[in-house]
Amino acid sequence: MKNLIIAQSGGPTVAINASLAGVLKQNKISNTFGTIYGALNGITGIVNQHFLDLTEAVAKDENFIEELKHTPAMFLGSCRFKVPSEENDAAFYETVFKVFEEKNVGAFFYIGGNDSMDTVDKLSAYAKKHGKDVSIIGIPKTIDNDLVHIDHTPGFGSAAKYVASSILELAHDTYIYHLKSVTIVEIMGRDAGWLTASSVLARNEYSAAPHLIYLPEKPFDIHECIEDTKKLLETQENVIIAVSEGIRDKDGNYVSASEAKTDNFGHAMLSGVAKYLEAKLHDELGVKTRGIEMNTLQRCAAHIASETDLSESMNLGATAVSLCEKGETGVMATLTRESDDPYKVTYGCHPVCEIANEVKSVPNDFINDKGNDVTDKMIAYLKPLILGEPNLTYENGIPKYLNISHLL
Amino acid sequence: MKNLIIAQSGGPTVAINASLAGVLKQNKISNTFGTIYGALNGITGIVNQHFLDLTEAVAKDENFIEELKHTPAMFLGSCRFKVPSEENDAAFYETVFKVFEEKNVGAFFYIGGNDSMDTVDKLSAYAKKHGKDVSIIGIPKTIDNDLVHIDHTPGFGSAAKYVASSILELAHDTYIYHLKSVTIVEIMGRDAGWLTASSVLARNEYSAAPHLIYLPEKPFDIHECIEDTKKLLETQENVIIAVSEGIRDKDGNYVSASEAKTDNFGHAMLSGVAKYLEAKLHDELGVKTRGIEMNTLQRCAAHIASETDLSESMNLGATAVSLCEKGETGVMATLTRESDDPYKVTYGCHPVCEIANEVKSVPNDFINDKGNDVTDKMIAYLKPLILGEPNLTYENGIPKYLNISHLL
Repeated sequence: MKNLIIAQSGGPTVAINASLAGVLKQNKISNTFGTIYGALNGITGIVNQHFLDLTEAVAKDENFIEELKHTPAMFLGSCRFKVPSEENDAAFYETVFKVFEEKNVGAFFYIGGNDSMDTVDKLSAYAKKHGKDVSIIGIPKTIDNDLVHIDHTPGFGSAAKYVASSILELAHDTYIYHLKSVTIVEIMGRDAGWLTASSVLARNEYSAAPHLIYLPEKPFDIHECIEDTKKLLETQENVIIAVSEGIRDKDGNYVSASEAKTDNFGHAMLSGVAKYLEAKLHDELGVKTRGIEMNTLQRCAAHIASETDLSESMNLGATAVSLCEKGETGVMATLTRESDDPYKVTYGCHPVCEIANEVKSVPNDFINDKGNDVTDKMIAYLKPLILGEPNLTYENGIPKYLNISHLL
Repeated sequence: MKNLIIAQSGGPTVAINASLAGVLKQNKISNTFGTIYGALNGITGIVNQHFLDLTEAVAKDENFIEELKHTPAMFLGSCRFKVPSEENDAAFYETVFKVFEEKNVGAFFYIGGNDSMDTVDKLSAYAKKHGKDVSIIGIPKTIDNDLVHIDHTPGFGSAAKYVASSILELAHDTYIYHLKSVTIVEIMGRDAGWLTASSVLARNEYSAAPHLIYLPEKPFDIHECIEDTKKLLETQENVIIAVSEGIRDKDGNYVSASEAKTDNFGHAMLSGVAKYLEAKLHDELGVKTRGIEMNTLQRCAAHIASETDLSESMNLGATAVSLCEKGETGVMATLTRESDDPYKVTYGCHPVCEIANEVKSVPNDFINDKGNDVTDKMIAYLKPLILGEPNLTYENGIPKYLNISHLL
């Protein structure tokens, strides 16, 4: 029986380990692979031969798969390593495939985003060209939701649930005073506005926050933003603005750096877009303003993950095992939405060469004409993705997560 | 039967509405008061006669008390209103007590922090002096945990649970790369370091983060901080620093403003302490640094409240009702810790005149000698306060909270 190597790469999300858990769970049922090796710190773990026997970890601890499912970031560690082309560094490929041979590896799964899919593409192309019988399969993840040929990406739904829940809680925080105020919340997403758009899910029967939503897909005009905010303040006391870190003006310049508040000495202060708008709107409107940069918890707050997201991430891991059994290689496990309501997805795959290095932006009809809100189409798309709360275990009052250290 | 007016004041916490819920629940059992009026926006709601009949709200909706318990910030709204002295504005007192008379009010409960206890003090002194038969009782709240004559304050335990859980999740986020990095997390607390100290509860068997903890109670020395961090980086890759927004140097100057990064033009940029340390440690140590200002969620993230905190807050509300039955006035409901393990508290009261305008700082023996960590005494004190997870209801994937708008 052949073995499997699996690794994780790129930036953290809440659901990357759920995909790893899904692979392990599926293999317990299907017995597709003899040993599953986790390569530490992405592809570099193969080159450096840093492996963890995950089959053993599963056998030793009956809670391993379930706890792994709920653990944020990368259990196996990550790397930022751009795989060279074969022309530039054939030795790299020879090293990797030599390890595959030594370990009797039939498949390599790489859980990651855009860059990781580029790695999958290159390795699978090499394998085909040189007649190596190793199936190379990508399993997607990114909070940015910007991979093409997949309805949405693992990790996004949980980040979206964190963003929406947080905006509602921040709304409760601002509603208590009879005092005009503007709160600007800066959300991750340099090039794609999906996560910022998910703030719309904070709206409920009593709260319309966020009242304005600005995505990088439409040019940002500070004057319109000031006017929009001013108009809202005529009829309500508190305005909450959700803004992507990546908004740019009509010339393509990042708003955060294009202009900034001056300090007490008249010197320009450069900062993030939330702090910039905090200063600008305060100066222009004369009301209390607060800029909030939503911190890295938006990608690692597993305590408020979306169960839909975690389940789908597990299923994509399981799908990779099935794809391998069918002899697929050079593909990424994908999910396709069959319907919004009832929400239904099916699993399959797509050639990774058509996914790597592409970016899925928010379509035009998901953003309103003024560019300060999203449309019902966006809401229908987002709504099912944040549903469900995982059954998380707490220990001493904080979430119980898994860490690799005691297994090394 | 006499009626009760209750109001909320000061800044938001997760547990203020739990105290309100506790009053309502206790009165359902004890029938101490006929009607319970909620005054909107604190004491100003009495002056402006903005009331909500809470007895009616409870009668109409069987889930009202339970949902109120889990709702962050102030259901009745807040105010920042400094009550004048009787000498300066006797008319204010006459107005308030005229409303009490008109509404047949036997007691007024004020849920709040230090300033609100000052209001309780002044109103109860006025009542005694002028022979008004209205019991004025304070119910504490503050995430800062800086009220005296109470073991800890409602709202603190939930904020502490948020801080500790978040630091653990941020630790998972930083541990993934083989790369030296320093993460600085700025936590609320201008004068008291309790909440920053609670970050220590993030530590578990595999993670020692936060590796350094700086509180405002000890003078901050940037050179020592640099040395401490440098030393840690010799044996580990990632350092996480928890720092209070209120740290000051030996001369009492806030660290955030004492020195700052210069921008590309050589101009000084003033900012919060996290951003300051981000720049400073980057310059001095040459490693990746990230400053995170923990946003207002630390005081309103009800989705990760401490059940211990919410239950105690309800009990303090119930205690206020009992205190009133015993004829107490001019007191604050308090809790006293009987033991750490098993954790046990008892409820009582303390004269509010000895509480208002006092601040409980972190004692010296709760901080280590170097001033860069807390001691086991602090851990023993904090540990029970974050235990337990509330049974929160979600709707459409986000927490279901109560809002007053549909009752007005």
